[in-house]
Amino acid sequence: MSQEQLYKIHFLPSGREVEIQGGQSFIKAAQAAGIHINASCGGAGVCGKCRVILEKGTVEGGRSDKLSPEDYRAGYRQACIATVSGDATVTVPEMSSLKTGGLSTAVPVRHRAAMHRFDIQDLRKAGIFVPPVVKLFLELPPASALDNMADAGRIILGLSNQYDERGIVTSLPILGKIRKALRDDNFRLTVTLAHPVNSKTKTHLINIQPGNWTSRNFGLAFDIGTTTVYGLLLDLNTGKVLARHGDYNSQLSYGEDVITRIIHAENPAGQEQMQEMVVKSINSCIDHLLASAKPAAGKKKGKITRDEISSITLAGNTTMTHLLLGLEPDNIRRSPYVPVTTFVPPIRAADLNIKLPHHTVALLYPSISSYVGGDIVAGVMGSGMYRTDKVTLYIDIGTNAEIVIGNREWLACAACSAGPAFEGGGITHGMRAANGAIEDFSLNPATLEPMNITIGNQQPLGICGSGLLVIVATLLENQVIDRSGKFNRQLDTPRIRPGRSGYEYVLAWKDESGAHSDIVINEVDIDNFIRAKAAIYAGVKTLVEEVGLAIGDLEQIILAGAFGSYIDLDSAMTIGLLPEVSPDKVIYVGNGSLLGSWMSALSNHIRQDVVDVVHRMTSFELSEVPDFKDQYVASLFLPHTDIALFPATGKRLGASATETKA
Amino acid sequence: MSQEQLYKIHFLPSGREVEIQGGQSFIKAAQAAGIHINASCGGAGVCGKCRVILEKGTVEGGRSDKLSPEDYRAGYRQACIATVSGDATVTVPEMSSLKTGGLSTAVPVRHRAAMHRFDIQDLRKAGIFVPPVVKLFLELPPASALDNMADAGRIILGLSNQYDERGIVTSLPILGKIRKALRDDNFRLTVTLAHPVNSKTKTHLINIQPGNWTSRNFGLAFDIGTTTVYGLLLDLNTGKVLARHGDYNSQLSYGEDVITRIIHAENPAGQEQMQEMVVKSINSCIDHLLASAKPAAGKKKGKITRDEISSITLAGNTTMTHLLLGLEPDNIRRSPYVPVTTFVPPIRAADLNIKLPHHTVALLYPSISSYVGGDIVAGVMGSGMYRTDKVTLYIDIGTNAEIVIGNREWLACAACSAGPAFEGGGITHGMRAANGAIEDFSLNPATLEPMNITIGNQQPLGICGSGLLVIVATLLENQVIDRSGKFNRQLDTPRIRPGRSGYEYVLAWKDESGAHSDIVINEVDIDNFIRAKAAIYAGVKTLVEEVGLAIGDLEQIILAGAFGSYIDLDSAMTIGLLPEVSPDKVIYVGNGSLLGSWMSALSNHIRQDVVDVVHRMTSFELSEVPDFKDQYVASLFLPHTDIALFPATGKRLGASATETKA
Repeated sequence: MSQEQLYKIHFLPSGREVEIQGGQSFIKAAQAAGIHINASCGGAGVCGKCRVILEKGTVEGGRSDKLSPEDYRAGYRQACIATVSGDATVTVPEMSSLKTGGLSTAVPVRHRAAMHRFDIQDLRKAGIFVPPVVKLFLELPPASALDNMADAGRIILGLSNQYDERGIVTSLPILGKIRKALRDDNFRLTVTLAHPVNSKTKTHLINIQPGNWTSRNFGLAFDIGTTTVYGLLLDLNTGKVLARHGDYNSQLSYGEDVITRIIHAENPAGQEQMQEMVVKSINSCIDHLLASAKPAAGKKKGKITRDEISSITLAGNTTMTHLLLGLEPDNIRRSPYVPVTTFVPPIRAADLNIKLPHHTVALLYPSISSYVGGDIVAGVMGSGMYRTDKVTLYIDIGTNAEIVIGNREWLACAACSAGPAFEGGGITHGMRAANGAIEDFSLNPATLEPMNITIGNQQPLGICGSGLLVIVATLLENQVIDRSGKFNRQLDTPRIRPGRSGYEYVLAWKDESGAHSDIVINEVDIDNFIRAKAAIYAGVKTLVEEVGLAIGDLEQIILAGAFGSYIDLDSAMTIGLLPEVSPDKVIYVGNGSLLGSWMSALSNHIRQDVVDVVHRMTSFELSEVPDFKDQYVASLFLPHTDIALFPATGKRLGASATETKA
Repeated sequence: MSQEQLYKIHFLPSGREVEIQGGQSFIKAAQAAGIHINASCGGAGVCGKCRVILEKGTVEGGRSDKLSPEDYRAGYRQACIATVSGDATVTVPEMSSLKTGGLSTAVPVRHRAAMHRFDIQDLRKAGIFVPPVVKLFLELPPASALDNMADAGRIILGLSNQYDERGIVTSLPILGKIRKALRDDNFRLTVTLAHPVNSKTKTHLINIQPGNWTSRNFGLAFDIGTTTVYGLLLDLNTGKVLARHGDYNSQLSYGEDVITRIIHAENPAGQEQMQEMVVKSINSCIDHLLASAKPAAGKKKGKITRDEISSITLAGNTTMTHLLLGLEPDNIRRSPYVPVTTFVPPIRAADLNIKLPHHTVALLYPSISSYVGGDIVAGVMGSGMYRTDKVTLYIDIGTNAEIVIGNREWLACAACSAGPAFEGGGITHGMRAANGAIEDFSLNPATLEPMNITIGNQQPLGICGSGLLVIVATLLENQVIDRSGKFNRQLDTPRIRPGRSGYEYVLAWKDESGAHSDIVINEVDIDNFIRAKAAIYAGVKTLVEEVGLAIGDLEQIILAGAFGSYIDLDSAMTIGLLPEVSPDKVIYVGNGSLLGSWMSALSNHIRQDVVDVVHRMTSFELSEVPDFKDQYVASLFLPHTDIALFPATGKRLGASATETKA
């Protein structure tokens, strides 16, 4: 597909060039090149301000009623609705760029974290591609008068002789299948073994089939998120992902966050309902995965059936895990925040009403505490953080931010209650990262006119978390707001004005927006945002110092969660959300929970390491650390009261920074 | 009760004296004293031959229409219906004893095996009174802001700190109870732990109750027999038996032996039916046990409920175990006789539909092979055979006889198909050991008149196994039959006559019997009996020689099963059923299966030893031992072709033995 191909877009007069995927808008191309184009309407062709002139090459679209036929023939295009479809050279005219000196159109190029990708070869090379559940083929000597050992004993002896598998136990339902399975193909059979998570537990013989079915051994890996449920169908022999599917967690109809779910679960029958809902989502996901997977190749071909699924590995936060297991979550939301359990014994998927056969084992990621759950543990495993030498900060930002600091030798964790600002909550025009959300932004320093980039190239409806981060950082860098988040009331632009919640900046006028009003960001919004980032930064700093280090000792940052993939790292450091490190030392792992679940499903070594990691991890309850409150107050500045913690930002902010500090 | 008291009965003119329980008949007293009294009718006062004269003391009853009022006043009593109710001296008149010289009334005194009784003190002294399932009381620090460990982790830490219990796992249903149980009595709680059968398995936390309930921990021990189901209710804290109950195995309606049960189980739904039937019997037994048990004493009083039963230990033969577990038994009856399994994983009683709570563990005795089952293993454990230094023969005689030979160092076993002769099957007037069965017998050597002793002092209806043994031995010792089991056709008595199945001896004439015909034993009966005893003796001798010993190396015999308590040891050795050893080296353990089950329920050490015993035990398939057939043929003589194997019997039989041998 052309959308996956990269094209070169050359911008004049700055001469900057960018490589960008086909199908992207020219606004995004400009942003990627670090070029500001006025674009209030966010990419719907409404305001007509974002004109560029096509000099060479091809552009798709870019024609609107804001553009006369003459202009169009002269090469003018609306950058927001013009999409990249080949190499091109365009001029950003003065009208758009409002040139004020040679640097006028230069805006910061975004640095996003490098994507960490899981490669099965890494497991192979490390010799740890051994799924917890394996199928082995046995050819046994048929019973005879001189060898009339019991059927079960014959299999156990065969496993010992042929595979050096010892210490096997089985269950009554399997014993009930042994007699027939042994004889249906003359003592040639396939056994499914679930290996233990530690040496103090036995290997379980969980299934038995006549004949050789070793080539058909499949597993599922799931992330059970508060919002979404994601699943992978895996070939446990090759490690390949055969299908992937995500869907909303049906529990959403009972509230968006874990607290409302817990409250609902406290109603009579509420807990059962919550379990049913999430299991419904998992079952529906499995349906999709099986329907969309291609028939497996190899000797035994054909559609993958439920019966061929040997394991399902699941990771979720502590509340999701409790609700899935049918455990009372109420103490999770009540001080002193005690979960029922952090470890989950090996269970059968069928015991959770997951529509899988009796033999399928369900492996659940253990949690650390009420607010550092299995999703985070999975992320620590999946990202490889627990094996690195570097002092690493792992952070998953959502309503709560979970923080882990450490390396292969030690690990410490905590959860910060950031509030919903990063998900658009508590912000006047905040919204989730959906179509119409301003996700990127730049400012013409001379005119203070905005370039809004929205999701889906639509008229702006509001601001999502990553947009908010860039907007605040940009306003700060351009000294439109000061380090306490207050607007410079001296600036001469209609976009800055007093409003009901202090001063505000108009991102899009009513007629440019998709909403019924101007889209603004005001001082109360910024204050809420600062509180959110302060909670996270204070959490990180407190944790670092509790383990006897300084913030400067952090050598690497791993971002997880949906938010992490979109945030502009410079902005995040400018406003003091993340500690300052070189952007190339930041890694994004995406859905860390799914990643860990996936890797555990393919490597019993990793699954075994989980237990060790959980035991090694020191959990801090920040509210109980005396220093945390002071850290939080000190963080209620942009980027921080102590600008020395952010030397690069301090340099950029220059005199004004010092001024605000005074 | 007077029946439990012992009285002295003095017999004239022989001067013999015996101590006997009140309530017994004078016929039994005479037998116990080794005195013959003619008594064809077996104790119903019909034949009127068994007169004795009361010289001194008291006698209850003994009056019938065979006795004139004058005779009664003169002290005459019918010995069969006169019961002991105090010390007494009686004369056995010539008419009854048919005195022929001074020794005429002397018959062998019976030697029965000494009863082995289980004493909980033995376990205490050995330091192994530690039931597999224990209750422990925990007082835990309540959760607080500085100690907000998960509920499950708090319990596990408490078990480690307070009881040094480590490596605990639990299950989802228990996790579901933890939150409430911890808080209902402020973090004071009772946990029930099921300890593992070996160190490669973890301890299971199977129940949790708020408060201290350690004083109420109960267990069940069961023998699942082909005919009967026996159960004990045990206090796991004191080791006391609180109730005992036995009932028929409901499967009886589908046939009396394991083979007919297996055949029924092969019908559609037959296997399920068989499981339902035996579980019904177990459930009914539990009902009785709970209803009849006295309320437990101690701090927490009150009726014992199902919820307080922590474990049920069961032992049965391989077929009964398969049927209880719902496993296909069909290969047990088909060469090469392969059971589905010999070991049974730990299961929940509720999984077998036994009406016990979810947490109750069911511990099943492992089997050795298709015909040496968990009942025999339990007997080996319960009798202590596996701990003795003496070379021991353990034997359980029924339709099949199971034989174990060995000591603490080695064990070997085999099963012999004896046929039903010892249970009265295949014998013209054979019957089970029920009322009216001739269970003991002696012969007046001069007149060849019988003294029949029947169960329940009733007119004879037939012959049970122990009676048959004594009859054949007595006929042999009196040279009424020869060593090949043929009658001496020269003897002048109407009781010996040709019949449809060779010659026969009339035990009771029609009018003396409770049947509609004469009760006889004929040459075909004796032949069947000889085949049965030959199979067993040949099994024992083969097994002994397979392990490199001679029959004379046996130092001890342990008898198990109902039959064992009744057999006269001298008779058993006279006819060559048991090897000749001194009767005081024979021990009777009764229901060995129940005994072993009982001991395992109270001692996890013994339960752990079971695994070792089963692994150490060498199982022989007699049909596959070339020597067995010859041994069997050599045993088809009374007592054996090689009389040197039975020196005492040889001496008793004297010249006639030599004669037959020639």
